[in-house]
Amino acid sequence: MANGRDVIVSEVGPRDGLQSVARVMNYDARLDWIAALAEAGLAEIEIGSFVSPTHLPQMADTDRLLEDWRTSVALNTAIPEIIGLVANLRGAERAIAAGVDKITIPVSISETHSRTNLGKSTDEMIAETKRIVQLVRDRTPAIGVEAGLSTAFGCVVEGAMDPGRVVDIAERVIRAGVTSVGLSDTAGSGTPTQVRKLFRQMYNSLGSNVGAAHFHNTRGQGLANVLAALDAGVRTFDSSLAGLGGCPYAPGATGNIVTEDLVFLLEAEGLATGIDLDRLVAARSQLLRGLPGEPLYGYIADAGLPTGFSRSLRSASA
Amino acid sequence: MANGRDVIVSEVGPRDGLQSVARVMNYDARLDWIAALAEAGLAEIEIGSFVSPTHLPQMADTDRLLEDWRTSVALNTAIPEIIGLVANLRGAERAIAAGVDKITIPVSISETHSRTNLGKSTDEMIAETKRIVQLVRDRTPAIGVEAGLSTAFGCVVEGAMDPGRVVDIAERVIRAGVTSVGLSDTAGSGTPTQVRKLFRQMYNSLGSNVGAAHFHNTRGQGLANVLAALDAGVRTFDSSLAGLGGCPYAPGATGNIVTEDLVFLLEAEGLATGIDLDRLVAARSQLLRGLPGEPLYGYIADAGLPTGFSRSLRSASA
Repeated sequence: MANGRDVIVSEVGPRDGLQSVARVMNYDARLDWIAALAEAGLAEIEIGSFVSPTHLPQMADTDRLLEDWRTSVALNTAIPEIIGLVANLRGAERAIAAGVDKITIPVSISETHSRTNLGKSTDEMIAETKRIVQLVRDRTPAIGVEAGLSTAFGCVVEGAMDPGRVVDIAERVIRAGVTSVGLSDTAGSGTPTQVRKLFRQMYNSLGSNVGAAHFHNTRGQGLANVLAALDAGVRTFDSSLAGLGGCPYAPGATGNIVTEDLVFLLEAEGLATGIDLDRLVAARSQLLRGLPGEPLYGYIADAGLPTGFSRSLRSASA
Repeated sequence: MANGRDVIVSEVGPRDGLQSVARVMNYDARLDWIAALAEAGLAEIEIGSFVSPTHLPQMADTDRLLEDWRTSVALNTAIPEIIGLVANLRGAERAIAAGVDKITIPVSISETHSRTNLGKSTDEMIAETKRIVQLVRDRTPAIGVEAGLSTAFGCVVEGAMDPGRVVDIAERVIRAGVTSVGLSDTAGSGTPTQVRKLFRQMYNSLGSNVGAAHFHNTRGQGLANVLAALDAGVRTFDSSLAGLGGCPYAPGATGNIVTEDLVFLLEAEGLATGIDLDRLVAARSQLLRGLPGEPLYGYIADAGLPTGFSRSLRSASA
């Protein structure tokens, strides 16, 4: 894996985190925060969604953000892979024009969630995925395309999902041309044995095309689910700095797992992340500058590393 | 295991939780809270410490609490095992007189922690343990005696502990006569592979004499550590309702893992706890009545069970 990393931490705070917060982060603060995340050595950053600003004002100017990133910031940092979320062909046009390294497409397992969240049936989203892949191949073949299967571990409305359906849809999006397929615990209902079993089924069917595990910490099981996914062979994890976007004291809280605590877990398990934990923790103050008063979650930022912690946290820039 | 339980959840909030809070809980509220915990179906409750009230005013009146519990409350509930923490012979006299079902003795692996916390070297605590066991045998042989090995996964001052020393001390306290030996992550520094390995070594040396896993959530790894301990064969877990006693926003926060979230994890893993999760969550308001304004931690109390959650949570009183 690149740069001596054993595992990829994919920061989704600038996308999943920000769009779960009602307030809109100031543009300059957003750019500074993303720069701070890059400087911490993150392997991937999901920089935003290419969706309508009317629908998600928090995600306005993602195109400009990427341009400013490329011209003013990126040259000074260890450059991470920049991912953009797109849900249709129009978003893909924008993402390609903006110059993302990778596109991620949400495909819902739950039909209810698919229609509510994307305005399309699951079949229609698979068809749209095929069109997006074709567009990428025609324009900029070097861009990777991943599908993230939302509600893979359950849906707030429909409840449990059939694992057979999850694997079947995964195979269909691979046939539609995506490079990899991840699983997202959109409802935060996943639990370890379920996670281990479903990822094992995915590896049995898809091999190296299995992508990221995307967990929320809605019921406090996020890092236990990471451990189970590691056991199944997963080596890419989505997470959000300070758990941005979730609030354990509000009903329906759906924060991503906390990047800082995830990095500590992975390094303690002997897996090099390439991340400088001190710099990562420092990026929390950049986040607060952009969203003053926003609650920050996670433990390692306050507790620090244990006395004599043996695995040296490597700096990507070192 | 008793009452169809696959796993024992041992509630330590009334002991470890309360003694980590500076305020002293009102006596009647403390009794009502423990009654609410018992009604939720917990298998064990660590009701308090039998230590000097000068040293720990939060633990004053543990004797009277147990008497009032036995006479006024216990007859109306599914009775849990009542555990008392004792650190010396005098505490053991009190615990026996008060009528505990089980005594737990803290024995520190770290010499520094042993002297700071108990005023004795590790060897002196093992000798004291032998005297306590002898006293119990002479007076009330039915009382179980467990040793909990503090700082087994690391010490705030000394750092990492030698696993060989942990197992050696475990063997010595077994020879001193205790029934079982648990491992406590006092510093909250434990991580999954370390936990799995150390408990496996314990089982290899001590077999069925291995007792509870006692984790703190200091670095957010608590439930991941539970998963690793389950994998090693552990079937008794200490935890604290609402994570009482810890604060993730204060340096040195050392809250126990959250009972409610632990119960969700165990039940989701297919292990019957015998606990009624609704009643357990309801006991949080009893806790707040005794300690108004105290921060409550955990996720499942706010998020609720996932839609269509398949494992029916059993009530011990059903």
